[in-house]
Amino acid sequence: MAVYTEPTDEELATLLNAWGLDGLRNFKGIAEGIQNSNFLIEVRQGRFILTIYEKSVVLDDLPFYLGLTETAANAGLPAARPIRTQDGEMVQMIRGKPTSLCTFLDGVSSQHPPSSQTRAAGAALAQLHLALADYPQKRPNDLGPHNWSELWAGRAAHSEDLEPGIAPSIDQDLKEFAANWPRDLPRGIIHADLFPDNVLFLGDRVNGLIDFYFACEDFLAYDLAVMLNAWCFEANGREFDLVKGRALIMGYETVRPLSQSERNALPLLARGAALRFFLTRLVDWVTPMDGALVRKKDPRDYAARLAFHRNARSAADYGAPE
Amino acid sequence: MAVYTEPTDEELATLLNAWGLDGLRNFKGIAEGIQNSNFLIEVRQGRFILTIYEKSVVLDDLPFYLGLTETAANAGLPAARPIRTQDGEMVQMIRGKPTSLCTFLDGVSSQHPPSSQTRAAGAALAQLHLALADYPQKRPNDLGPHNWSELWAGRAAHSEDLEPGIAPSIDQDLKEFAANWPRDLPRGIIHADLFPDNVLFLGDRVNGLIDFYFACEDFLAYDLAVMLNAWCFEANGREFDLVKGRALIMGYETVRPLSQSERNALPLLARGAALRFFLTRLVDWVTPMDGALVRKKDPRDYAARLAFHRNARSAADYGAPE
Repeated sequence: MAVYTEPTDEELATLLNAWGLDGLRNFKGIAEGIQNSNFLIEVRQGRFILTIYEKSVVLDDLPFYLGLTETAANAGLPAARPIRTQDGEMVQMIRGKPTSLCTFLDGVSSQHPPSSQTRAAGAALAQLHLALADYPQKRPNDLGPHNWSELWAGRAAHSEDLEPGIAPSIDQDLKEFAANWPRDLPRGIIHADLFPDNVLFLGDRVNGLIDFYFACEDFLAYDLAVMLNAWCFEANGREFDLVKGRALIMGYETVRPLSQSERNALPLLARGAALRFFLTRLVDWVTPMDGALVRKKDPRDYAARLAFHRNARSAADYGAPE
Repeated sequence: MAVYTEPTDEELATLLNAWGLDGLRNFKGIAEGIQNSNFLIEVRQGRFILTIYEKSVVLDDLPFYLGLTETAANAGLPAARPIRTQDGEMVQMIRGKPTSLCTFLDGVSSQHPPSSQTRAAGAALAQLHLALADYPQKRPNDLGPHNWSELWAGRAAHSEDLEPGIAPSIDQDLKEFAANWPRDLPRGIIHADLFPDNVLFLGDRVNGLIDFYFACEDFLAYDLAVMLNAWCFEANGREFDLVKGRALIMGYETVRPLSQSERNALPLLARGAALRFFLTRLVDWVTPMDGALVRKKDPRDYAARLAFHRNARSAADYGAPE
């Protein structure tokens, strides 16, 4: 929500020159991204987003993320295209920090997307999965099921303070995941964080898929499970919206139909995804933050979702057509 | 440097509807302004800046500020034009906070403007003074000479910690201002804060005059004295750049020549302007801030400027042609 590194005039000129851009018309810091500095740049050649990566993004992972959005853009998806320098590099350094430039995407995210947008986003997710099917780089899901026990260790007391009675249920969730988490579903590159704020719309059309910094290799259906959590509940997580669930799944299936085993796994995957966001929010909730202006997200929204998923029996409980 | 109030989708739709705007394409929080929330909005009708005023701006003063930038725009100056609602209002309320929408201005501010830009900015200041000559609303300069003693009261020890030996000099400055501050120079509406970050350029052309929230009635030449401080010193304030000083004054005088009494007063006005920024920076420096991300500005830069002004004898010391 802030700009941490402000380039000097000279640094900006050097960067633009390496990208072969000129005729600077606008340069404004934008309040996007929690841990990077982002700027809207307009030059003679068009509009771009400049990102200066602060400590949170590892330099070694950048070719994975930037290559991903480039591959998606090349496949015709509305993803930002990284601009290469005249030497072919996707990253320049400024004061020791990696810096990238990507095409600007028009569009506006919705805080409460209607089912028409939810359907379109589901279709876009499936298109993304297909577009990235042959992506050569790999990155493990370091917020996946193998990491949840570790994230949970030592947090039971904190979570009980927030939501009395939840700790034993989470112990039980973890036991069931250890026994029953699927092993052989279709895998590929997933976005892993396609929340409504990462999808830009023009009307009901998806015009931007952004923020690939959690992308990794995992089950494709897990990505859909993340979206069931993020798009199809009322704000406090207590009520699942069957109409939106159906729109999301049907949108996805217009592009890539789910297999029967993916459908069968959906309740467990959705429960796992809810636990993943509950746990990372819980960690943030109890960790003091540097910047007083960062708003923390309430883990309890995901505790309520977890309760729903524990009772779900089949994909039909999420609105999937029989 | 941050966004404090984020409108909901519904609030934004209501606002846009009252302004008669539609076809939302972009909506991004921008990291501008220290105490307001600003957003870049693009709709079918064009690009605009939405400002939600936090507690720092008094609702009663808004018609003064917004009327000012509208008057300047009507006179052909590159100032933002406030958009009126279909009921003719320049301000809408959102969650009890006043909100305005102004046209977006292309252009980029310079951290170290060259003399070509400094000259253009001087001319723009004089054009602004002429354009606002008949402005009907009034607002006193509440950071003017009458307020400096109060701002200074009780700060001597703090300022000595920062810059040993400065306190007696400031006592002396205040004595001289009390005795010699001019009484009968040409008055009018001044911007009072036309620092380089408040002027947007396309090349050497001034394409944006922004941030009128310190504007008030005072001596016109005092506005030029503020700019001599802000535009014509090296970064640490120790060295005055005569070439830039001459460019600024000559630029101003291409539009509005200074009277002999204004020229004579320039060293004292410049010293007063330096004290004003020294004092407000000093107050900020020793006041704990809410948001850890706000970068404070070092008062010592203005202590060095003050030392220069105490030795200046005439407008020629600032580069004014004889």
